[in-house]
Amino acid sequence: TLILFFWLGDFKMYDVIIIGAGVVGYATAMYAGRMGMKSLVIGAEPGGTITKTNMVENYPGFKKLTGQELADNLREHALDYKEFVELKDSMVTKIQKKDDGNFSVSMGDNVVEGKTVIYATGSKWRELQVPGHDDYLNKGVHYCALCDGFFYRGKTVAVVGGSDSAIKDALVLTEHAKKVYVIYRKERPRAEPPNMNRFDKSEIELINNTNVLEMKGDDVKGLVSVELDKEFNGSKELPLDGLFIAIGHIPLSELAKDVGVELNKKNEIMINRKSETNVPGFFAAGDVADTHFKQAITGVAEGVLAAYGAYEYINK
Amino acid sequence: TLILFFWLGDFKMYDVIIIGAGVVGYATAMYAGRMGMKSLVIGAEPGGTITKTNMVENYPGFKKLTGQELADNLREHALDYKEFVELKDSMVTKIQKKDDGNFSVSMGDNVVEGKTVIYATGSKWRELQVPGHDDYLNKGVHYCALCDGFFYRGKTVAVVGGSDSAIKDALVLTEHAKKVYVIYRKERPRAEPPNMNRFDKSEIELINNTNVLEMKGDDVKGLVSVELDKEFNGSKELPLDGLFIAIGHIPLSELAKDVGVELNKKNEIMINRKSETNVPGFFAAGDVADTHFKQAITGVAEGVLAAYGAYEYINK
Repeated sequence: TLILFFWLGDFKMYDVIIIGAGVVGYATAMYAGRMGMKSLVIGAEPGGTITKTNMVENYPGFKKLTGQELADNLREHALDYKEFVELKDSMVTKIQKKDDGNFSVSMGDNVVEGKTVIYATGSKWRELQVPGHDDYLNKGVHYCALCDGFFYRGKTVAVVGGSDSAIKDALVLTEHAKKVYVIYRKERPRAEPPNMNRFDKSEIELINNTNVLEMKGDDVKGLVSVELDKEFNGSKELPLDGLFIAIGHIPLSELAKDVGVELNKKNEIMINRKSETNVPGFFAAGDVADTHFKQAITGVAEGVLAAYGAYEYINK
Repeated sequence: TLILFFWLGDFKMYDVIIIGAGVVGYATAMYAGRMGMKSLVIGAEPGGTITKTNMVENYPGFKKLTGQELADNLREHALDYKEFVELKDSMVTKIQKKDDGNFSVSMGDNVVEGKTVIYATGSKWRELQVPGHDDYLNKGVHYCALCDGFFYRGKTVAVVGGSDSAIKDALVLTEHAKKVYVIYRKERPRAEPPNMNRFDKSEIELINNTNVLEMKGDDVKGLVSVELDKEFNGSKELPLDGLFIAIGHIPLSELAKDVGVELNKKNEIMINRKSETNVPGFFAAGDVADTHFKQAITGVAEGVLAAYGAYEYINK
């Protein structure tokens, strides 16, 4: 009994468990900490997806900084309240709502409990699943131009996609590669105007109304070319040293779904203006939520509203 | 006809007219500018209400700065897109929706037109309308501790109110006055925990469960005392050199109401998650809207969503 007693004494109950250590998780923790709530931020990738971006120009208040710098700023801001805020580099494997209304959050065998959960896991890259993808992944096929562009100095590369992220990736690659293509299934990319201007002024070559059907290569060289569904310069085979894929994101909502949280058809978590989900005490914010225009700033504000919601929930 | 032609050529049609030049208006303009929309920000008080605050610690990304600094950052950020963004220090007197669907916005005789309006006027201080208020306003009675606290060096002052703003005002006043009271109608102020801690550690004296019934003074000295509804230290009359009022805000929604925009019972503009109001093309954001937890960061995000909404509305 004595042993059990000590174990209980050691057991940690948090007011808020924030799942996801990106900009949204950090901003949420800062507010939760200010409100005096014992908060734990759990994330397997500190800083999150934004750290893969070299240029953030639209977080109001900062004219221009890297995604890593923005994440660092928000992390430091959260740690200003470290009396209340704890950060943990770990991967959540399971979330359960217990009979007493609290949540248990597992990281493998390590289990913590919280009165509320704020779910801010974000999203992951959508894969271009065509033949050859798995063979050449990280051997010529990549998802992060900022991370891996440097290895293509003087080489020929292509970006697949036409979003703002795709165009920004292509612009990053012009700093390294001697030739950059953008392969897009539609007519014209749809980046934000400043990035479209940069794209239009660049030497990036657009291969539009075209899809990639296969990735080809060999064991020694890795990726060598891609097979297109339409001729380009007289051939459906485009020789490439590197291929960067930027065709969107998939919300990381699976663990929330298992707790009974409602998702929409895109598997995004449905929230209201208070960042509440249908499960009492379970909030969501950021790229994993069903906001129609997902930006760092909108996700951060959703996190702030979730922190306030958690505060109200606990103190009601 | 020729003269008319020239006049038409000179006439300015904006994509977006942003009404209110506070942090929300500036952030909205930055995003609207990035999206290549011709934008006009009109505001009578550049920087807005936040410039009356000396300490902003909860705008995610900035550990601590003054309200003026935050407003300046956001203004400069908006002016990064000055090809598209114009700022005008002026007072809007009327907004009308025209038969062609566009909006006309009057500043007295000066009329401009916009395809959309984003309304971000914020709120004004709620007045403490008791006898003597109008007589001693700006003669001992004030609404901005940051602006006017300096004049009470070595004096005795009180703040009326118990919100976070009221407590922050009282803390500001301790830097100047020799004695600071907080007069609050309820038991205990409800500031954010970090500010409550500062308050508890300070020498500020709380006069709780008490209301101010009258402001007294004379023509020469201005305010001399206030009449309380309950004895404090044996008397209902409290001698004061200055009284600072911080009892909440009133949304500046009147011009929107005249366009047919729906308000709730608190006269806040009702918006949805896209910052849309019931009037097509008319958006609202920030303190004037019906968000339950109003913060700089949440208002800014609402403005960003409104800018995107305006973009979609124009390009649909």
